[in-house]
Amino acid sequence: MISVFERSPDQGRGLARDMPVRWALEEVGRPYTTRPLSFAAMKADAHRARHPFGQIPTFEEGGLVLFESGAILLHIASHYPGLLPAEPHVRARAIGWLFAALSTIEPPILDRERAHYLEKDEPWYAQRMPLLDQAIRSRLTDLSRRLGKADWLDGDFSVGDLAMVSVLRRIEGAGLYELFDNITAYVARATARPAFTRAFEAQKTAFASYEKES
Amino acid sequence: MISVFERSPDQGRGLARDMPVRWALEEVGRPYTTRPLSFAAMKADAHRARHPFGQIPTFEEGGLVLFESGAILLHIASHYPGLLPAEPHVRARAIGWLFAALSTIEPPILDRERAHYLEKDEPWYAQRMPLLDQAIRSRLTDLSRRLGKADWLDGDFSVGDLAMVSVLRRIEGAGLYELFDNITAYVARATARPAFTRAFEAQKTAFASYEKES
Repeated sequence: MISVFERSPDQGRGLARDMPVRWALEEVGRPYTTRPLSFAAMKADAHRARHPFGQIPTFEEGGLVLFESGAILLHIASHYPGLLPAEPHVRARAIGWLFAALSTIEPPILDRERAHYLEKDEPWYAQRMPLLDQAIRSRLTDLSRRLGKADWLDGDFSVGDLAMVSVLRRIEGAGLYELFDNITAYVARATARPAFTRAFEAQKTAFASYEKES
Repeated sequence: MISVFERSPDQGRGLARDMPVRWALEEVGRPYTTRPLSFAAMKADAHRARHPFGQIPTFEEGGLVLFESGAILLHIASHYPGLLPAEPHVRARAIGWLFAALSTIEPPILDRERAHYLEKDEPWYAQRMPLLDQAIRSRLTDLSRRLGKADWLDGDFSVGDLAMVSVLRRIEGAGLYELFDNITAYVARATARPAFTRAFEAQKTAFASYEKES
């Protein structure tokens, strides 16, 4: 069971944080159910017992309750085959890319998002945006160099690629990762995976059904 | 072997990213050596082969080369006893707190740091700072509520606490976590651990010896 937005603010574009978890569960072939939460329910005590910061997603399985996307992805990848190689060194490095996605690539992308939502009407917005874009481009330059001509970041597709592509999708169309042909192809390669498509359709269908009800 | 700053920009205050790795190695009782790197060496190809983003720390052991603090901490905690409980659910939750430290608590703290370094002379600095502080306080309010009267975030001291306290130390003295008595006591409790002290002294001694040489 995973908790998800009752009505995703991304309008079903698959940018909410349940999407990577759905994708991971599809990759390893695990069925799941969802607990849709309104914004009020997310901040209520019942959900805060599951998630101290009142957010989604959470993951529940056999008495375990987990929060934090990264921890949930790692848990799924560690317990079901398909997202982590068996060889210990490659496995450790794939987990390294999961952290790199969340700790190195995502922060400047979220900075940009937050500025867009919270500071759009501030007098400094026009001056700050180029700085934020430059911070993202700088990280993507390093990422592109490391990726090179490989299909995936280290060996086979792993939870590290799943997390990285999930993060990159947040700036899809912004003309940032599109500056790098190999990153553009990498994102396209990942999102063409059948598991991605199934996860994407599931969250889109869920969004559409809530819209219809209201 | 871990790579560290040859001359830490924090002047030996133990805020550089090698500190949590040193601390973790001290907690599990593993000796280590260091590879001090100048800023130029960090960006050179030899180091970029170890760390695609040209940063510290990296971790090398028996042919494995890892980057990303979180991945290194998890690797140490997974391979040597002392930083993760054996019970699978508590273990998964401790790893969850590692991710929470890096993905939920650290980002607004780094935002504030970056603004301090990069935007101090910008006309918007005075207006943005209260927003950044408020974002941190909001997260700390949730953290304080969850911590309650417990000594550690979930059961015994774990890699999750080590990461969380390492992140909180970045705002030590800023009057942010000090607003919460239980967080203040939690940081004091963690930094009173002998392993923390040994790690702190090691990086301080290293900094002092580089200063002396020059």
